[in-house]
Amino acid sequence: MAKQAQTAITPTREEDYPEWYQQVVKAADLAENSPVRGCMVIKPWGYAIWENMQRDLDRRFKETGHKNAYFPLFIPMSYLQKEADHVEGFAKECAVVTHSRLEADADGKLQPAGKLEEPLIVRPTSETIIGELFSKWVKSYRDLPLLINQWANVVRWEMRTRLFLRTAEFLWQEGHTAHATAEEAMEETRKMIDVYADFAEKYMAMPVIVGEKTEAERFPGADATFAIEAMMQDRKALQAGTSHFLGQNFAKSSNIKYLSSEGKEEFAWTTSWGVSTRLVGGLIMTHSDDDGLVLPPRIAPAHVVIIPVTPKEETREAVLNYCLDLKQALEAVNYLEGRVKVEFDDRDMRGGEKAWGWIKQGIPLRVEVGPRDMENDSVFVGRRDRAPKDKQSFGRADFVTGVVDLLEEMQAGLLAKAKAFRKANTREITTEAEFVEFFTAKNEKNPEIHGGFASMGFCCDSELEDQISKKYKVTVRCIPTATVKETVPCVFTGKPGKRVIFAKSY
Amino acid sequence: MAKQAQTAITPTREEDYPEWYQQVVKAADLAENSPVRGCMVIKPWGYAIWENMQRDLDRRFKETGHKNAYFPLFIPMSYLQKEADHVEGFAKECAVVTHSRLEADADGKLQPAGKLEEPLIVRPTSETIIGELFSKWVKSYRDLPLLINQWANVVRWEMRTRLFLRTAEFLWQEGHTAHATAEEAMEETRKMIDVYADFAEKYMAMPVIVGEKTEAERFPGADATFAIEAMMQDRKALQAGTSHFLGQNFAKSSNIKYLSSEGKEEFAWTTSWGVSTRLVGGLIMTHSDDDGLVLPPRIAPAHVVIIPVTPKEETREAVLNYCLDLKQALEAVNYLEGRVKVEFDDRDMRGGEKAWGWIKQGIPLRVEVGPRDMENDSVFVGRRDRAPKDKQSFGRADFVTGVVDLLEEMQAGLLAKAKAFRKANTREITTEAEFVEFFTAKNEKNPEIHGGFASMGFCCDSELEDQISKKYKVTVRCIPTATVKETVPCVFTGKPGKRVIFAKSY
Repeated sequence: MAKQAQTAITPTREEDYPEWYQQVVKAADLAENSPVRGCMVIKPWGYAIWENMQRDLDRRFKETGHKNAYFPLFIPMSYLQKEADHVEGFAKECAVVTHSRLEADADGKLQPAGKLEEPLIVRPTSETIIGELFSKWVKSYRDLPLLINQWANVVRWEMRTRLFLRTAEFLWQEGHTAHATAEEAMEETRKMIDVYADFAEKYMAMPVIVGEKTEAERFPGADATFAIEAMMQDRKALQAGTSHFLGQNFAKSSNIKYLSSEGKEEFAWTTSWGVSTRLVGGLIMTHSDDDGLVLPPRIAPAHVVIIPVTPKEETREAVLNYCLDLKQALEAVNYLEGRVKVEFDDRDMRGGEKAWGWIKQGIPLRVEVGPRDMENDSVFVGRRDRAPKDKQSFGRADFVTGVVDLLEEMQAGLLAKAKAFRKANTREITTEAEFVEFFTAKNEKNPEIHGGFASMGFCCDSELEDQISKKYKVTVRCIPTATVKETVPCVFTGKPGKRVIFAKSY
Repeated sequence: MAKQAQTAITPTREEDYPEWYQQVVKAADLAENSPVRGCMVIKPWGYAIWENMQRDLDRRFKETGHKNAYFPLFIPMSYLQKEADHVEGFAKECAVVTHSRLEADADGKLQPAGKLEEPLIVRPTSETIIGELFSKWVKSYRDLPLLINQWANVVRWEMRTRLFLRTAEFLWQEGHTAHATAEEAMEETRKMIDVYADFAEKYMAMPVIVGEKTEAERFPGADATFAIEAMMQDRKALQAGTSHFLGQNFAKSSNIKYLSSEGKEEFAWTTSWGVSTRLVGGLIMTHSDDDGLVLPPRIAPAHVVIIPVTPKEETREAVLNYCLDLKQALEAVNYLEGRVKVEFDDRDMRGGEKAWGWIKQGIPLRVEVGPRDMENDSVFVGRRDRAPKDKQSFGRADFVTGVVDLLEEMQAGLLAKAKAFRKANTREITTEAEFVEFFTAKNEKNPEIHGGFASMGFCCDSELEDQISKKYKVTVRCIPTATVKETVPCVFTGKPGKRVIFAKSY
């Protein structure tokens, strides 16, 4: 019997998808669980990915006229209660601050002391506190639109957590805007979900479906919620960003009023929109393979690692110098808003172990340089989107002049691959039997891997949706914007329906 | 009697310094108090200043080998107790989370529910939680030095708060590093306080004194604390950044051990260092005047505002186009890591009101352009570092080519002015009588404005220091590094002492 091909990650995706995910995160040194239940530690390589996301998103927000600000971490308990749906949605899982200091008891053990008059909630989202401030800032139509974004941490006391995908504390941005008319607020809501979609596709190479949520899946307090939905490699959907049209709900509960140009007092129309460190989870699950993390070059903390191979002492210094020259040459090449970023790995370790370490961390290009490469003025290059052993020799100068094309080719390839995967796992469903088969057929190897995206007609009845959700553990991910005008018979009732995507989801 | 010259800010610095500060913050629209006691809202203009600080500091941290990461907001109560001095320092003022959800009571009122087994503290600083993680990450001398930085929010339940200077929640960065030897850790501690000092002077135009704290003023748990101290315009000192040599205190309480190259198990040596949004307060109080905020160009969110003056309808469009061309030309000019940033203010308001608005916001250059300027291909420029009416005409092209020199001249001028102010208000003190007179002489106009920096010999006896602090409300700000080798007789005891700076402080 032939020896089984080894992979760097055990188990493989086929064998145990959730465990594969945890092992990829671990092997790439992205994050780990902390001693505080549900709260993660984002390690430098993972945080650098988030910083890259932040940089590009922040630029997009500013280009669309938004300004950053910062609001309190704490929300008075009474504020949460102002909007009925909102409190319903968030009261069940929030961190409550009740005391303002610690005091040692008779045994010298610390105990909470200094009870607060009103408990404070650690923000799960900031509509209510920002609404309170907007109500002071908005006086006249001249103050509108008010376009604000906040980068912050938020806390939702989740019971079952998973690194990046669902954690009690997570990092995010939350946009909050106020407008004079419903039309302007809806335009903003749609604009920002499109900003997210463009970012996800162009930057993360993660194709997404833009669409509206059904009533059941709306943000608590919103009149309409739009989302971007991406397909992970277990064919489940990941909601990767949302944008909410809040109507006048929060304007009324927070009293955000303005004097119109006709001198009439009106309630404003508000929106909110956000993406979080969950995007890192989506990135991992879109591209990674059984050898670990795969990073699209545009989001990678570094693009190239140079690994000197120095078997003989007499050529060692020359090889190291050759590598450092190469590093300098690459770092002078413009890429995106900055330069090509290069790691130089001269750690005292076996070359194979080093290369595998970088493969697991997902760096796009590995350049190995030994005495022979130096003699030939060449470099030996491994691409993360190809098999580990599939390496190619380049002339040194050619590699430097061509590196950006190579990175962009990899970027485009990852997006194309992800799109092809989604296409292959999206099924047009026209009957209930097909639906049931699609979502319940056993994957013998791994029950975690299921059907995929079901594109189908649905009457969007909330009660029916609830029944189906419970029975098959699937949800309507969205009513895709691209096909929102289609009328398609409901697969369950035959009534005229919308075209929706049903899927299992994170 | 001549009419009193009007200032944009009431009261003036002389009249009521603390109130002047609040009014400058308000007039510049930097921040405001929130409905949550002690927590501020940082508004877009204030936040943009903080973002500029972050960008430059982050670059400096990365250039000195540090990597960013993110640690939990919450710290288990028991962790705080691990280091005796540390708990002493922070237990008195921390936000304590005791519950994990809210439930409606019989009257429908929300109440905290889901009591936690162990209360959690909202981090006042992260030595203990980061120490716990470092103890897992550090195994061998090869893992050292470990150089980590975190950008985060922290909470200290201060009783008396003041925007930017002292708030319950504030934004900061905290560096945390672990080293194999005491020497390396001390080198890191000093390196980072020097990074802060260089940043403060070169970027914020805020001169600082680098020095070590006396035992009484050390960080709880540190073996040595270094600080940068700046003089505000009321001649009080502002501690603007600190760097702590933690010895093996936290390594021992968190069990951060490594295997040395000789195979021996050793405790690591750690450091921590931080600056916060307090720097924005320091910036305001170093440069601002009775007309409002004055921003050094290198930290300003925008460098130039162009204000079109369009008295006649027939030339209106031409003037606006002339302004937009000028904007484009200026925005093409490189400045620092980016470009010159330009605001174009064509709001429908009186020109004078607009100009005063920008003066109060501290923008370095105001360019007014009317039909006559357009005819002459010129611009009319007001500098924030000169009197509001002191404006100068430039040829348009000359202004564009010279704008960076102008900004850098202003930057240098602000630093020189602040240095001169500090020099004028620093006194060499040799007797106790002089000391008493320096700190107790009445400023008849404003009791808030006091002597300044007293440079003098002090024996550094903690008990004596405590007595003096209580009696005169002054503290030893630091033992300046520049003169640390001097032996100077103590002003109070005559014993051989160190040269120290005594001052009132924020």
